[in-house]
Amino acid sequence: MSTQKPFEHAALIAKPDASEQLRDTLTRALRFLGERKVRVSLELRTAQLLNRGDGRPLSELGQDCDFAIVVGGDGTLLHSARELVDAEVPLLGINLGRLGFLVDISPEHMCDMLGAILDGEYELGERMLLRCDIDDQPPQLALNDVVLHKWNIARMIEYETWVNDDFVDAQRSDGLIVSTPTGSTAYALSGGGPLLSPELDAIALVPICPHTLSNRPIVVHGRSLIRVRVSGKTEPEHVRLTCDGQAILPVVPGEDIRIRRHDKALRLLHPAGHDHFRILRTKLGWGESRS
Amino acid sequence: MSTQKPFEHAALIAKPDASEQLRDTLTRALRFLGERKVRVSLELRTAQLLNRGDGRPLSELGQDCDFAIVVGGDGTLLHSARELVDAEVPLLGINLGRLGFLVDISPEHMCDMLGAILDGEYELGERMLLRCDIDDQPPQLALNDVVLHKWNIARMIEYETWVNDDFVDAQRSDGLIVSTPTGSTAYALSGGGPLLSPELDAIALVPICPHTLSNRPIVVHGRSLIRVRVSGKTEPEHVRLTCDGQAILPVVPGEDIRIRRHDKALRLLHPAGHDHFRILRTKLGWGESRS
Amino acid sequence: MSTQKPFEHAALIAKPDASEQLRDTLTRALRFLGERKVRVSLELRTAQLLNRGDGRPLSELGQDCDFAIVVGGDGTLLHSARELVDAEVPLLGINLGRLGFLVDISPEHMCDMLGAILDGEYELGERMLLRCDIDDQPPQLALNDVVLHKWNIARMIEYETWVNDDFVDAQRSDGLIVSTPTGSTAYALSGGGPLLSPELDAIALVPICPHTLSNRPIVVHGRSLIRVRVSGKTEPEHVRLTCDGQAILPVVPGEDIRIRRHDKALRLLHPAGHDHFRILRTKLGWGESRS
Amino acid sequence: MSTQKPFEHAALIAKPDASEQLRDTLTRALRFLGERKVRVSLELRTAQLLNRGDGRPLSELGQDCDFAIVVGGDGTLLHSARELVDAEVPLLGINLGRLGFLVDISPEHMCDMLGAILDGEYELGERMLLRCDIDDQPPQLALNDVVLHKWNIARMIEYETWVNDDFVDAQRSDGLIVSTPTGSTAYALSGGGPLLSPELDAIALVPICPHTLSNRPIVVHGRSLIRVRVSGKTEPEHVRLTCDGQAILPVVPGEDIRIRRHDKALRLLHPAGHDHFRILRTKLGWGESRS
Repeated sequence: MSTQKPFEHAALIAKPDASEQLRDTLTRALRFLGERKVRVSLELRTAQLLNRGDGRPLSELGQDCDFAIVVGGDGTLLHSARELVDAEVPLLGINLGRLGFLVDISPEHMCDMLGAILDGEYELGERMLLRCDIDDQPPQLALNDVVLHKWNIARMIEYETWVNDDFVDAQRSDGLIVSTPTGSTAYALSGGGPLLSPELDAIALVPICPHTLSNRPIVVHGRSLIRVRVSGKTEPEHVRLTCDGQAILPVVPGEDIRIRRHDKALRLLHPAGHDHFRILRTKLGWGESRS
Repeated sequence: MSTQKPFEHAALIAKPDASEQLRDTLTRALRFLGERKVRVSLELRTAQLLNRGDGRPLSELGQDCDFAIVVGGDGTLLHSARELVDAEVPLLGINLGRLGFLVDISPEHMCDMLGAILDGEYELGERMLLRCDIDDQPPQLALNDVVLHKWNIARMIEYETWVNDDFVDAQRSDGLIVSTPTGSTAYALSGGGPLLSPELDAIALVPICPHTLSNRPIVVHGRSLIRVRVSGKTEPEHVRLTCDGQAILPVVPGEDIRIRRHDKALRLLHPAGHDHFRILRTKLGWGESRS
Repeated sequence: MSTQKPFEHAALIAKPDASEQLRDTLTRALRFLGERKVRVSLELRTAQLLNRGDGRPLSELGQDCDFAIVVGGDGTLLHSARELVDAEVPLLGINLGRLGFLVDISPEHMCDMLGAILDGEYELGERMLLRCDIDDQPPQLALNDVVLHKWNIARMIEYETWVNDDFVDAQRSDGLIVSTPTGSTAYALSGGGPLLSPELDAIALVPICPHTLSNRPIVVHGRSLIRVRVSGKTEPEHVRLTCDGQAILPVVPGEDIRIRRHDKALRLLHPAGHDHFRILRTKLGWGESRS
Repeated sequence: MSTQKPFEHAALIAKPDASEQLRDTLTRALRFLGERKVRVSLELRTAQLLNRGDGRPLSELGQDCDFAIVVGGDGTLLHSARELVDAEVPLLGINLGRLGFLVDISPEHMCDMLGAILDGEYELGERMLLRCDIDDQPPQLALNDVVLHKWNIARMIEYETWVNDDFVDAQRSDGLIVSTPTGSTAYALSGGGPLLSPELDAIALVPICPHTLSNRPIVVHGRSLIRVRVSGKTEPEHVRLTCDGQAILPVVPGEDIRIRRHDKALRLLHPAGHDHFRILRTKLGWGESRS
């Protein structure tokens, strides 16, 4: 993408749980970026991990950083993505030894990969986010999924669904996963949903343990407005909405939850030659080529 | 079964939610049983529904009743079953207009069916219950299922499972359904479990949205001891156990939950000619014979 | 769509299996179209059903007809679609009493619906077709699906898959369903695939009974080139390819099968107010709104 | 089991496909058995692999052998099991480097395991077989499964099913897998069936890609008589029955296929400490204990 600014100022963001490996990875990253004359801003808690006082809030890093290096697991990247998407800061994910779908660079290859990326050898993939509106609460973003859950109860919840004002159906289930292509390898997969290619402009609706056996996953266009309304007979404490499994929101039974594609996409940095299917094969234990 | 006592004393147990239809059904049942000289003991809340003061606690009805007539849905029968199984009182289920797997007699056929049963034209089916022991709490019974749930959280829980001291595996999922054949048409079916014939001496272990896609439902022998241990890292408030989706029990992470077949089976009364597959066809919309 | 020509010349195409109901429906259609001064060309076998000698081959009808009325089931429409898509003739599907996903007008409403459509009250939906190339054979089209099957053998087949030259994986299964959104309600649904909205520009790859349990359905972008190569060790008589379950093609093990979106889309005529989800609810027994 | 005769005469049966590894494994087995003074009878083709002329037909080996050593994959053991079950010869399965569910001894541990078994350190597991009767053809046996397949056609087949003369339903699907607990880890698992414990006296009915989404796997008691009748409208060449995926039988549409438990069980020899779940964990990639 020709419009990408040169990478002169990096944000460095780490998983909150400290470990020797994490500290070592961060230290090596800082040294390498220093050698390459890249200015670095540390996220607040990341700075604390390194006993430094110069950290800045995550939400502020988008103001002047050209890209962000996220060290941790998919969870850390999900959180960073929601905070930085609007600033259009591309993210680069480094894992801590266990390959993630979003953090596909291992610590031992980090410096080589960073070097190549600084030299312009990279791919920029765009990933859709979902935006979820519940009445007058501030909208929430999700890179993986917006999930309606039964909560604090064993009984199923009842809800109705519309796509672009077309009524879909009334269901009873443990909940509903509304997933992006990125989220299709996460919770939606456990719920029986299909794998969606990252470049697909589509949203999957995956019911969780539906009472009606023919309530199968549905994939709709990415420009769809999805509305979900929990039955007004439901107690408010028995239903919750989560974004990426992290933010937990109350739901008002009888009122619409509105979910649609966010107007900005996340930009994910990958080393050149990135191969989505290779990650799927590794993570899901698929068969390698025999030819 | 030749050992069944004649049906001279009925317990009458109703769903707690009052409705005109329920009151009418109870009144007709009382009149019919009176005509047939069957003595009737009313359960406490059932008596209140009829504005009568002579009700007795459910747990006490087993002492002298020869059989129990349960009017409501499957939920009412599940509750009655757990209370009366040890007294070996056979149950007869009357639905309120919507066929249930356990309450298969409709209100309009109630008196005909009752008459036939009093005349000895009936079938007695035995249904296994599960007994669940958590450390030193009193054991709990379940006719459908004992379910381990993630609770009050969006994240999956981790647990290990043993069958007869053989380690099965360590899983991450939304929970685990341990189901009887009776429960195989209930929540376990929504979770992807198989349908088990009622006469099968077997227990199904059905993981709920398992993280590992090869974690499929397992069916073990009915005499198996199943042990489930939630990871000691789990917060106690983030996991619960339910019996038939009704009783909700705390779980101590790191300690064993022990589930096995209860030593007494429930006896279910059906009109002669009862057809389990007909109920399945009706409830699940299966194809009727074309020949 | 403003570019649609007025409907002055109809093709009339019927299911080959004669029945009194079919003949009656055709006769009523002819009478109605005559009253509305619409010229009609009969397909060859349709003419024979009516004992008329003026039929024309299906492939020829696209030359001068403005639209085609297809009377039968989804199978009849699939066949007509493949023959007429390149002529850009919109199709209108009339069922014979049993609602189909593609033939959504019932015989009793046929004349009303036809009248409305001639008056301009209609919706035109575009449906992607797949085009399948096997070495130097002529390309084949499919509106529902291109399916690779094990054939004449109980053993699974082995094959490798690529999407846009990215290797996906090597699988063993009973076969592979490559489905359009239209086909997602057909065989792919029985194989465990998701429901895809008709307007989605996407192709689903659904393995049939895969040996590896993590081989889940994949949905890729509609512009993808899919290549499937059956293991060279396979006997040619033990594998076949079908298009819409109708055309049956040989496969050369070790050589590529290439599947991509056809460059022309089918145009489907629906009465105004057509509701895709209503058909899904009816066909799949989903819950109706309770609000 | 106290009734087991001492192991003084072994049958040696190998996979038909020759390889250096197979020949080496057989040679080592022969030498070891010779040292332990165990008499060995070679199966006909096994003898040919070793360039020996003293082989005997598989069906004859049951007359005087005390146990049989089967070297190959699960397929070789399935075949031997059907031939030797009636002679009550226990089988011991040696794999050729890839663990199978039935052949769980690896070549490198073969002599140690054989030694232990000859010393009496073994477990004998009983495995149910199915017996399949089609009109007046000789009955066929299956250790894994009896499978009804659509054949040589892309269209689904229609059939009706009865269990003990109770009508189950009329289905349309690609076929029906009738599986033993042993077969539940084989084709039935790919078809969506549950895992059944080997000691369970049960039979699973697993529809293959059923048209009706609520047609879920059913598990019935092992003493059940299962009858399947393919619709009389089906062409005989479009349906076949297979036993363990090996024997292929014609089916007469409109006539009953009768499947029940065979009256003799197969005896499988395992080294002491055999662990069924360990094999499942290894083959299915399940999580190991973390405690």
